[in-house]
Amino acid sequence: MRTAAIVLIGNELLSGKVADENAIWLIGRLRALGVQLRRVTFVADDAQAIGDELIRVTTQVDDVFTSGGVGPTHDDITIESVAAAFGVPVVRDAELEALVRGHFGERLRADHLRMADVPAGSELVHGGEIRWPVVHFRNLWILPGVPQIFRAKFDGIADRFRAGAFFLRSIYLDADEGEIAPLLRRVQAEHCVEIGSYPRIDRAEYRIRVTVEARAAGPVDDAVAALLDGLAVAHVVRIDPAAGSAE
Amino acid sequence: MRTAAIVLIGNELLSGKVADENAIWLIGRLRALGVQLRRVTFVADDAQAIGDELIRVTTQVDDVFTSGGVGPTHDDITIESVAAAFGVPVVRDAELEALVRGHFGERLRADHLRMADVPAGSELVHGGEIRWPVVHFRNLWILPGVPQIFRAKFDGIADRFRAGAFFLRSIYLDADEGEIAPLLRRVQAEHCVEIGSYPRIDRAEYRIRVTVEARAAGPVDDAVAALLDGLAVAHVVRIDPAAGSAE
Repeated sequence: MRTAAIVLIGNELLSGKVADENAIWLIGRLRALGVQLRRVTFVADDAQAIGDELIRVTTQVDDVFTSGGVGPTHDDITIESVAAAFGVPVVRDAELEALVRGHFGERLRADHLRMADVPAGSELVHGGEIRWPVVHFRNLWILPGVPQIFRAKFDGIADRFRAGAFFLRSIYLDADEGEIAPLLRRVQAEHCVEIGSYPRIDRAEYRIRVTVEARAAGPVDDAVAALLDGLAVAHVVRIDPAAGSAE
Repeated sequence: MRTAAIVLIGNELLSGKVADENAIWLIGRLRALGVQLRRVTFVADDAQAIGDELIRVTTQVDDVFTSGGVGPTHDDITIESVAAAFGVPVVRDAELEALVRGHFGERLRADHLRMADVPAGSELVHGGEIRWPVVHFRNLWILPGVPQIFRAKFDGIADRFRAGAFFLRSIYLDADEGEIAPLLRRVQAEHCVEIGSYPRIDRAEYRIRVTVEARAAGPVDDAVAALLDGLAVAHVVRIDPAAGSAE
């Protein structure tokens, strides 16, 4: 199963000055692609914190997507933090330098060229409609924080991460979690599915949503049937009729 | 300066089955209280992942707030994960047991009593209008995932985290980050403030928002004046008139 992590870099997200738009979007996209997301982290603009987190997650999952810290200003430290963490120098990439020079023309300033810097050993990955490639260093995909560019760049390379769909059904219950916990535990143990249980206190319609998911529809339907066998009819408010490919 | 981290526990957040409501809310509340949030993590329902993250963040910040994994079902493993990570047993708390028994009465099931379990050495902290105390273990504050209860429990104990306001002003520019990068770097170095620079490509009104913040209004106003001195008049679209207590 292909696994991933998201690392959002920026003080502005932690202070609430800017609300995250990228993690919430990428969670949905990775789900649609069938990638299992294992972790999301918001870290401060601090080279040590960025480096520690990246060193750690790159060993735990197949692909790590970073967002932010790649512009020309003093608080853009992602490239140098990656390089320091992995013990490689920062180098100016000729292809990126040509793109930056072409884009800014006579308006070019020295700081713009920081956007042509990459950790040594990076490759540039092209794809989609956007002219600027994605910087790929080991299993890190270094994406910008500006939401429109983040999305366009990810969509340009998304196909390479496609890993097969998830199948999901939900059962909505008027019951208490403690009552159904033994049943959930038994069905979870006997079927090759993942069962989740999510209480709500603000929905008149139901009190618990139980989710059943797997990589194929058959096990999901079997586990749902086993759950329904064990539940009192009076507790079941609604069932998703069939296991659909879930996003 | 009081610092904090948020750790959200639950596969449902990583798969997108449930959208986070708690981190986004607590980011705003901590900001309003003047607490510096250093890190937010979404981790899976995996004892090792939960334990590793908590061991790590509890040494880095003053207070760690967890959300989720404290109900009675098989996927609720926060308490046992904390206990295992810190090498203490799980114990049944008498006060919580009495609350659970009182709440469920004749409907009580064995699994309900899991909600009375805590890592040994925890204290219960009361506050606010909610009858159920918050479980406090070392510098961890263990909160539930259900948003309404998460909020009520945090608000019940919020006053103890109050740490003084942040002051923030924003300057909205029709300029390019590369042009202003040297100015931002110089003013950042000469003033005791934190300067941020956030480009947008979807606002007709401005292209960059520059933020200046500090723990007092004076340094913010001084740094804003220094920035305005260095900026071309034509670039400045709008300025927040005064340093306000920022949330």
